[in-house]
Amino acid sequence: MKTYLDCISCFFSQALRAGRIATRDEKKLKKILDEIGLIIKDIPLENTPPETGMLIYEKVREITGVIDPYKKIKNESTQQALALYPYLKSTVNNSDDKLLTAIRISIAGNIIDFGVHNHFNIEEVIHNVLKKDFAIFDYDKFKNHLNKTDEILYIGDNAGETVFDKVLIEEMEKPVIYVVRETPVINDAIYDDAIQAGIDKVATILSSGTSAPGNLLKTCNDQFMGIYKKSTFVIAKGQGNYEALSNEKQLIFFLLIAKCWVIANDIGVNEKDIILKGINI
Amino acid sequence: MKTYLDCISCFFSQALRAGRIATRDEKKLKKILDEIGLIIKDIPLENTPPETGMLIYEKVREITGVIDPYKKIKNESTQQALALYPYLKSTVNNSDDKLLTAIRISIAGNIIDFGVHNHFNIEEVIHNVLKKDFAIFDYDKFKNHLNKTDEILYIGDNAGETVFDKVLIEEMEKPVIYVVRETPVINDAIYDDAIQAGIDKVATILSSGTSAPGNLLKTCNDQFMGIYKKSTFVIAKGQGNYEALSNEKQLIFFLLIAKCWVIANDIGVNEKDIILKGINI
Repeated sequence: MKTYLDCISCFFSQALRAGRIATRDEKKLKKILDEIGLIIKDIPLENTPPETGMLIYEKVREITGVIDPYKKIKNESTQQALALYPYLKSTVNNSDDKLLTAIRISIAGNIIDFGVHNHFNIEEVIHNVLKKDFAIFDYDKFKNHLNKTDEILYIGDNAGETVFDKVLIEEMEKPVIYVVRETPVINDAIYDDAIQAGIDKVATILSSGTSAPGNLLKTCNDQFMGIYKKSTFVIAKGQGNYEALSNEKQLIFFLLIAKCWVIANDIGVNEKDIILKGINI
Repeated sequence: MKTYLDCISCFFSQALRAGRIATRDEKKLKKILDEIGLIIKDIPLENTPPETGMLIYEKVREITGVIDPYKKIKNESTQQALALYPYLKSTVNNSDDKLLTAIRISIAGNIIDFGVHNHFNIEEVIHNVLKKDFAIFDYDKFKNHLNKTDEILYIGDNAGETVFDKVLIEEMEKPVIYVVRETPVINDAIYDDAIQAGIDKVATILSSGTSAPGNLLKTCNDQFMGIYKKSTFVIAKGQGNYEALSNEKQLIFFLLIAKCWVIANDIGVNEKDIILKGINI
């Protein structure tokens, strides 16, 4: 997805939100915004938003000196999600279509996104997403391709959401490589967050190498790129991965809640819609 | 009011909103945002937001070449308000406290503010504001000072809102100097807008000389400053004038709807609250 003009004010909101989690020093916070101001002119609209996101969160780390501002929040999200895990599992097991219910649960977990906001009620979101109509619903194609593939490349998004992903991974019954970010960025899951969620019990965890808040291929490592290029079934969770990968020429299924109106508009849906969208299917 | 860190992302949203009214050329719009990016580092937080607003709307005029992007919108707002005028007058005349009802109507008109948003239903707002409790209600002091003054200095805000101000001016039954901006900025009323609303029939219209979206004293002309310094009763409408004048050492009554959470927080009220707040009273 390209950068929309509307993304620019949002870059400043995001930087301030992340900065405030790292420090209360107004001078440092102003310096973050000043420096982002200076780079706006160098951001072509052709770039994807995560390319700029990467620079923004680098600035936050550099100026505040805090490498992982969301660490505590990520831990809490994972603990909260782990406490819900038995309920999520029983919801799947008591449903008519277990795979679809697990997909819905994985999408519900995508609300745990501190890049967009920091107010949500996870139980309420689960309840809503379990019965909500999909705005885009490529479920038949998803099942067809899933049946044919030998391995799933599952590109994760946020810490805590990882536990919801685990529920879907367990339901797909195929070998899974679960991809995390290399460097902490917002509350996106890194290796330790995935371990904390128990992803290592159900999948092979792999760092993509990126520090962008989305799986930005030009920043990914060779190991990831080798696997990605050969992959026949990719799942990409959340907005950041959609932004980074929506123009790819490979089969990808995006699972997300459209939390931002700009992204919703790019996909052609409304804000708050839930999406199971395949490209190149 | 000082500039809050949260104002910075809003400067970009405002610039984009105004820019899009002036042009559809994405390159020009990007250039506006690029140039605002470059000035962020030169904005101390001690400045009031309208000081930066002034620079932003200058950039929009300069880069798009459109001097008054909101001209058509301002005309429409005034026409819509003029059509409501008989209803506003009868509402005042049928009320128990005509002055208070006229104050409420003047405040309801403050919703016509394209600096904050461009979606509102004016009839609905009038209906709500007529019965809503004030979050700050210095009405007794307002009446006392009004009784004692020989002349009112009424600092207007938006075009269209001017018609609502006319209703209050008529009810106060004192000579009024009605202050407008010199240069078009957002949908703030300039001389022509006040004339179109019929303000010249009930008050003397005076340009403050400013091009800021708030009555920023350091940019006002000598004529305004002379009158302002001697004034014993000042009414200042809307958020921009609050931002510009909230730290003044002179008696001022602010009449506004708190439409932005940052300003609401500065005043100590909630968003959407209505305010009749006197300072130095």
